[in-house]
Amino acid sequence: MKFKPKFSSGLWVFAGCMDRFCPSGYSKLVGVKEQIELAGKVQGLKGIECHQSDFDQISRQEFKRLLKKNNLSCSNVNVNVWGSAKWKHGAFAHQDKRIRKEAIEEAKKAVRIAREIGSPSIGLWLGADGFDYPFQINYFKQWDYLLSSIREVGEYAQPDIKVGIEYKLKEPRTHMTISSAGKTLAICLELGLENVGAVIDFGHALMSREDPAESLVLLSRHHKLFNVHLNDAYREWDDDMIVGVVHFWETLEFLYYCVKTSYQGWLGLDMFPYREDGVKAATMSIKNIKALLKMVEKIDFAKLERAQRTMGALKTQEVIRKVVF
Amino acid sequence: MKFKPKFSSGLWVFAGCMDRFCPSGYSKLVGVKEQIELAGKVQGLKGIECHQSDFDQISRQEFKRLLKKNNLSCSNVNVNVWGSAKWKHGAFAHQDKRIRKEAIEEAKKAVRIAREIGSPSIGLWLGADGFDYPFQINYFKQWDYLLSSIREVGEYAQPDIKVGIEYKLKEPRTHMTISSAGKTLAICLELGLENVGAVIDFGHALMSREDPAESLVLLSRHHKLFNVHLNDAYREWDDDMIVGVVHFWETLEFLYYCVKTSYQGWLGLDMFPYREDGVKAATMSIKNIKALLKMVEKIDFAKLERAQRTMGALKTQEVIRKVVF
Amino acid sequence: MKFKPKFSSGLWVFAGCMDRFCPSGYSKLVGVKEQIELAGKVQGLKGIECHQSDFDQISRQEFKRLLKKNNLSCSNVNVNVWGSAKWKHGAFAHQDKRIRKEAIEEAKKAVRIAREIGSPSIGLWLGADGFDYPFQINYFKQWDYLLSSIREVGEYAQPDIKVGIEYKLKEPRTHMTISSAGKTLAICLELGLENVGAVIDFGHALMSREDPAESLVLLSRHHKLFNVHLNDAYREWDDDMIVGVVHFWETLEFLYYCVKTSYQGWLGLDMFPYREDGVKAATMSIKNIKALLKMVEKIDFAKLERAQRTMGALKTQEVIRKVVF
Amino acid sequence: MKFKPKFSSGLWVFAGCMDRFCPSGYSKLVGVKEQIELAGKVQGLKGIECHQSDFDQISRQEFKRLLKKNNLSCSNVNVNVWGSAKWKHGAFAHQDKRIRKEAIEEAKKAVRIAREIGSPSIGLWLGADGFDYPFQINYFKQWDYLLSSIREVGEYAQPDIKVGIEYKLKEPRTHMTISSAGKTLAICLELGLENVGAVIDFGHALMSREDPAESLVLLSRHHKLFNVHLNDAYREWDDDMIVGVVHFWETLEFLYYCVKTSYQGWLGLDMFPYREDGVKAATMSIKNIKALLKMVEKIDFAKLERAQRTMGALKTQEVIRKVVF
Repeated sequence: MKFKPKFSSGLWVFAGCMDRFCPSGYSKLVGVKEQIELAGKVQGLKGIECHQSDFDQISRQEFKRLLKKNNLSCSNVNVNVWGSAKWKHGAFAHQDKRIRKEAIEEAKKAVRIAREIGSPSIGLWLGADGFDYPFQINYFKQWDYLLSSIREVGEYAQPDIKVGIEYKLKEPRTHMTISSAGKTLAICLELGLENVGAVIDFGHALMSREDPAESLVLLSRHHKLFNVHLNDAYREWDDDMIVGVVHFWETLEFLYYCVKTSYQGWLGLDMFPYREDGVKAATMSIKNIKALLKMVEKIDFAKLERAQRTMGALKTQEVIRKVVF
Repeated sequence: MKFKPKFSSGLWVFAGCMDRFCPSGYSKLVGVKEQIELAGKVQGLKGIECHQSDFDQISRQEFKRLLKKNNLSCSNVNVNVWGSAKWKHGAFAHQDKRIRKEAIEEAKKAVRIAREIGSPSIGLWLGADGFDYPFQINYFKQWDYLLSSIREVGEYAQPDIKVGIEYKLKEPRTHMTISSAGKTLAICLELGLENVGAVIDFGHALMSREDPAESLVLLSRHHKLFNVHLNDAYREWDDDMIVGVVHFWETLEFLYYCVKTSYQGWLGLDMFPYREDGVKAATMSIKNIKALLKMVEKIDFAKLERAQRTMGALKTQEVIRKVVF
Repeated sequence: MKFKPKFSSGLWVFAGCMDRFCPSGYSKLVGVKEQIELAGKVQGLKGIECHQSDFDQISRQEFKRLLKKNNLSCSNVNVNVWGSAKWKHGAFAHQDKRIRKEAIEEAKKAVRIAREIGSPSIGLWLGADGFDYPFQINYFKQWDYLLSSIREVGEYAQPDIKVGIEYKLKEPRTHMTISSAGKTLAICLELGLENVGAVIDFGHALMSREDPAESLVLLSRHHKLFNVHLNDAYREWDDDMIVGVVHFWETLEFLYYCVKTSYQGWLGLDMFPYREDGVKAATMSIKNIKALLKMVEKIDFAKLERAQRTMGALKTQEVIRKVVF
Repeated sequence: MKFKPKFSSGLWVFAGCMDRFCPSGYSKLVGVKEQIELAGKVQGLKGIECHQSDFDQISRQEFKRLLKKNNLSCSNVNVNVWGSAKWKHGAFAHQDKRIRKEAIEEAKKAVRIAREIGSPSIGLWLGADGFDYPFQINYFKQWDYLLSSIREVGEYAQPDIKVGIEYKLKEPRTHMTISSAGKTLAICLELGLENVGAVIDFGHALMSREDPAESLVLLSRHHKLFNVHLNDAYREWDDDMIVGVVHFWETLEFLYYCVKTSYQGWLGLDMFPYREDGVKAATMSIKNIKALLKMVEKIDFAKLERAQRTMGALKTQEVIRKVVF
């Protein structure tokens, strides 16, 4: 099968942004309905990602109606088990059985929503599961609970819903437990569930000091790349910027491997346009990705692979630099 | 004059914490009055730092009354020109003259508040002045406006109120203009105003890849260290943790130089105890600092200086390691 | 079984250090025989780590004789497949079959040496296998070759010799393929060979933005922690400093988990004392580790675990801070 | 005056590279004479940078003759006071007066060489002046000696020879004293010598978490940018790669400001092509820079500046992205 880009976007891209220094927001904060309407204005956008918690604001019927109206489908239902004080010390790996159970229930709810609204997958970005201080948690219990909770959700989602684990090094915790592509793959191998895989967020991969394309391959070798979040960042933090504005070459390389591996999932935008208009930021990201994909087409794949066989950077650069220089 | 630790704390330490993922807060968010009452419960705390914007919630008389009731004085009035959408693209260096003027007015208001409530200084942490994307701003204009705005505030504050510039590498912008101890010193030297100096925030110094003690010396050589913010962090982000929990040795070295230079300013706590009780976090920080100062006393200064003359790490470690090992 | 510290040291600690700016060395560069004699002078040292390439300088008999003379045993034979121009583009994952084969042969030689000189393990730090520039290598082939080469070596070493993979983020390549604890665990799970496991180097773990103690647990859960390299560093680079001089708390936490897991391997020193005397640096490291282990003994394990069940940092800090503050 | 690119290259680019893991070199190590001949083969190269220590291998006459033969001039004489064991603990700031004096003498020798061979400047990259461990040095003395040594050299070089201070965060020390653009500017302001200024190395600026273009402006505002070293790197280390291969946008922005400020100095290549051919690497860097300069020409400066006045990233990106997307 050939790679065909399908663009999705997190609804949060259109929600308006705030941070700890500006709680009232850098622009107007808007609700789910308006977020969908705004997503509908982005040229080329075919899908959206939501959270199970969005349905506290909107019925599933209304949600489906709005998607249809805006020619959108849902590419992923993310599990929000980090956005309220209850989860401040953890969710899937919380030491308190009741809280852990509640977290798992939220994920199961996301599975049911996914089924109902036609999403192929749910997303597990476990933002609360980690620690802030040395010695704060017992890592053995942390891992055991984490694995058993994911297993329970994975089994519940069988056979039709994929469960994509989105790793991140840190934020909101100073250390998150599932922090790298390697750990995510190890989890997948330990669990051995066909429908449990990984999500690469480009900025998260950079933050974990990975080459995002290399992480894509690491996971793809095991057929575990279920979803992709695109954005850009300055490597030390999840800056969630417009695609391609900082890491031109690494974004190009990532898209090259999407093409090369015939990646069949969505290209999801995961940005926080703090001071920018969300619709314009998403539109520009899609335009940038399309332009980068055109450049990928200009690469002579056979020639690049021949150059790669020499393992010499001058040879590969000679092929690659031509797409812009 | 001998060094005597005077402990102050940002009122925000007691305000309750939120972030972009948990806007409703990890614990109850409380107003200025309650913040002061909470500060009053921290053993050993003699001062607080506030913002000029706090006085939207409270009159100056009421503020002074509450300080007095809690045996506290005000060590610094920080200038909030970053906490609302208006400042999203800048304040002191905004290209729009009116916004720039408003920012300067806020700082002048802080100076007047400082005079009225008996604070020796105001703090300029210019969180909005920077940029997020390459090419976003004209750096020449940025620097010119920044310098002229600080100059205007510095002159307004003469002769009695000190103006302390608190540098930070990033957050909320991906790049802040005043980002390091070196730049801050260069600004002070260019302006040549006696009452314009610097604030070192321990975590900010780490984020800028500085050794905080070395930055202390850099600024002290020019008599430009006006205030200090203590906390701890993991070097890549402003984690605003309890003092001494990560960078034990570097905190010890920082305090060693406070003693060695007979630093006469306050030791201000600048923490965001997201998931912890603010009063307890501040109390623990003060206990940790006091314990570290006891260790500084145990250092044989003359012996350490002799070891430092050899420039060999084994010699200096032999002296230093004894304080704990 | 209880944890009993057994100290080993890389022979290179005593070899004298150079770098790209000072090729002639910061002190006298000495050969293997003298390195062993120097190791013999370090109080408390019971083992050494060598490289298979050391035996270009010395016979196995002579090596064994010198070890015996100095009351040392060999804890690990590292595989040097990075130290000459031949390996500049790779070894275990080199595209050129002949070079790959040569690299595997070097590892097999290390296995034979281990058997002959009584070392329980060989070490695979694959410093040449990675890349420097985007697009330089084909990541699929890189992983496939890497895995099959390690498998071949692992099977050759069965059943008596352990093969420990030592991950590192970078240096000498800008990106090394086996770059994190998570990837290393995933490799072990994919290979499924009982005698193939991992080595944690404390500074490497920091460089990969890991909490070293958490990585210890991640690997120990699968019985895959075969060896440990201790040192210290400033998180961005493999500074290979004396143990405990920067990351006091994280070293303490690492040793706490050595005790808690009854780690049965060696504690190996892996330092590059560029400007320091190797014997003195190793001696100080052992003294620091012993002092830290005394502190671990002072921790009330049951109390800490109770505090960890609350998941609150104030509770755990209250237990931990007492060991020094 | 208009900006006209003049390309120079460090002779070390052609010397062959080694590192601490491969002391014998990744390719053949060659002497100064051959380095000059190799520089002569790089198309577009008009200048070279050397070190005063190169003249231990070659007479000044012979050096001049070889430059002439290869149509090269000398753009900078760097002061090597770090490349032998003598300087292991420092040079310009060494506590030992004799060593400090020797270091100053080496710099004066560089000034005389510069005069004799027609170089406009000497370069002070003080690689040995810093520290490795907390508490290792007395920062007050460090700064005092450093400043007085630079002053002595600056005065000696008056009026015809410029002295360019090249800052770097670390390597070979874990902390170097002159570590950022801000500190370098502060030194220049403190010294107040017209002929003492700064050198920006692109990779060093990245390592200090600077935006290189912003640093260019910071220094240019004070007419203190004397020289530029171009290369690329992954932000945490001085990887010394071919120009433009990682930080496409930031290199473009840097060159934009070279044009905008009519920078009159040289563009010097400072690379360590460990595994690549030096002549080819330099040739590719020049080609990349020329291509980037063509893109700068395509930028509508007036339009970009109008966009920058809005301070909005979407506006500026709309102008900038067109050069490639």
